[in-house]
Amino acid sequence: MIEDKNPQRTSLSELGEFGLIEHLSKNLKITQESTLKGIGDDAAVLDFKDKKTVVSTDLLVEGVHFDLAYVPLKHLGYKAVMVNLSDIYAMNAKATQVTVSIAVSNRFPLEALEELYEGIALAAKIYNVDVVGGDTTSSTRGMIISVTAIGEAVEEDIVYRNGAGTNDLLVVTGDLGGAYLGLQVLEREKEVFKVNPNNQPDISMYTYIIERQLKPEARKDIPALLKELEVKPTAMIDVSDGLSSEIIHICKQSKVGCNLYEDKIPLDPQVISTSEEFELNSTTVALSGGEDYELLFTIKQEDYPKIKANPHLTVIGHMAQESEGVHLVTRANTKIPITARGWNALSEEKE
Amino acid sequence: MIEDKNPQRTSLSELGEFGLIEHLSKNLKITQESTLKGIGDDAAVLDFKDKKTVVSTDLLVEGVHFDLAYVPLKHLGYKAVMVNLSDIYAMNAKATQVTVSIAVSNRFPLEALEELYEGIALAAKIYNVDVVGGDTTSSTRGMIISVTAIGEAVEEDIVYRNGAGTNDLLVVTGDLGGAYLGLQVLEREKEVFKVNPNNQPDISMYTYIIERQLKPEARKDIPALLKELEVKPTAMIDVSDGLSSEIIHICKQSKVGCNLYEDKIPLDPQVISTSEEFELNSTTVALSGGEDYELLFTIKQEDYPKIKANPHLTVIGHMAQESEGVHLVTRANTKIPITARGWNALSEEKE
Repeated sequence: MIEDKNPQRTSLSELGEFGLIEHLSKNLKITQESTLKGIGDDAAVLDFKDKKTVVSTDLLVEGVHFDLAYVPLKHLGYKAVMVNLSDIYAMNAKATQVTVSIAVSNRFPLEALEELYEGIALAAKIYNVDVVGGDTTSSTRGMIISVTAIGEAVEEDIVYRNGAGTNDLLVVTGDLGGAYLGLQVLEREKEVFKVNPNNQPDISMYTYIIERQLKPEARKDIPALLKELEVKPTAMIDVSDGLSSEIIHICKQSKVGCNLYEDKIPLDPQVISTSEEFELNSTTVALSGGEDYELLFTIKQEDYPKIKANPHLTVIGHMAQESEGVHLVTRANTKIPITARGWNALSEEKE
Repeated sequence: MIEDKNPQRTSLSELGEFGLIEHLSKNLKITQESTLKGIGDDAAVLDFKDKKTVVSTDLLVEGVHFDLAYVPLKHLGYKAVMVNLSDIYAMNAKATQVTVSIAVSNRFPLEALEELYEGIALAAKIYNVDVVGGDTTSSTRGMIISVTAIGEAVEEDIVYRNGAGTNDLLVVTGDLGGAYLGLQVLEREKEVFKVNPNNQPDISMYTYIIERQLKPEARKDIPALLKELEVKPTAMIDVSDGLSSEIIHICKQSKVGCNLYEDKIPLDPQVISTSEEFELNSTTVALSGGEDYELLFTIKQEDYPKIKANPHLTVIGHMAQESEGVHLVTRANTKIPITARGWNALSEEKE
């Protein structure tokens, strides 16, 4: 597939490691006041003045986290940055820099890496972060992308996972389950393509969920919105592994229980219709799907009027005593214990 | 080889991703005042107060950067941290934190990862840095380690690559070429082992160079020593790719030339004897070998008395006008242009 899309091929070894880094990073502009030195020395130098530094890192592995049969490289670069910025926003912080390391086998031509970097540069531009470092090396097989995101925040603004109180409300941004279903559609089309490569699939009714999978957007707007609304969450996490596992993280670290209301979980109409088509329960999809990169947080009851009716925010439950446990309250009003069934990177390995 | 050393095997998928991170990080202690929050949230939170933040990142790929046929996992974990700390010291900064991300295939049992983490924890302890984050995931094949090192420095202390002046002296720490020759010995023993697995190799005469390859030490002592000597280098870089390519980096970025004196290059007796044995030119080994993780820096002439006779430091050349170029002055007093023949990760790929 790489070959088809890139009739022009420049071998990576022609350029060499230094040439490659220089070539790929030449279009990256430094815009952050906190970046004193970006790419080009042994290390980047940053200045956060009186603010705290926030750091998060993630590794994306071909064949595990992405399949180049249907993931365009530009989208992949964009998503690799999003996945990491999402963690910074989940601290209620502002993302300011990223470092991006890439290992690729020689089967990738330079043009493929350029495409990947276009996506990285686009994400950096839109989200207003500087690419300040990285490493480009070879792999024996496949592509690996490692991103470290760095951000800043005033200490009082930082929100951890462990601050939820027993009567707090549980709030989620956007809607859930789309990214997982988008993946199901893409996997199905890949199988169809294998059987009949001339078949042009009609994916117009899946546009939203496919975009959720291929080109997610991190919720940069939420820390700003919360500040504007004068709401400081008591706990916050991003929804990368699935709603259920994120709720359990907050409950475990905050030592509280939770009641999540099935009928409150925000679902896009495409999520509902596609769940039906795939004979999946849309609540299960939202609970276990993952990769939505929405933010999940808890707020004090008294802050409810401030967030009520905001189109970005949905109250989906409330926290409880730890002894009450973590439950889903179904539409039929029965309580089902929630277990961490989020996407487990280690058990899904395809050898 | 992994199997031989680990009669006890716990499958990684038994533990799952969260269980694994928790399990591996439970012995890591936070010691840095600047670490407000380590592993366990969406991001780490750091506080560098009025100091600048220094960030560097590197990716190590099995089959490209290391061969598990002869690299013990504990050493590998240690070295992965060293490689990154070295970049921080090369900024004349103090390393304070690292994040470590690992991708492994299910062929590795939990015990293998524990061994790797033991090395990481040991490096963190000895070098006084906190492991504050990371990601553990699966790979379709092999092991990938991505480390991001973070450090702090007062702005006036930071040394870049671009400050060398035309008459500055070129100084290197320790000695060069050992790591490369250690690798040659290990590669040879691997071949011998393939032919006769019962042969117990006598590697006692290679102890130093093998240790340079398997368990390098980053020069944490040098920024402290320079402070004590009241010398601020004008430019600095670590020797990871080989002396020649590091000199060229400094020259290019500082817009200067350089004369490097062959007879001044510090070589350990084991480097000299092993070079002879392998019929290699020891100067070429020092110039192109790489992985020594020594520091290379330039100082003003007037600072020479301060560093003279220090056993850690050797003056190996002097900078010149850019137009004079970059040369090796041989023992026979002829000038040979230096080209960047440092280790090139992208051309050495074994497919």
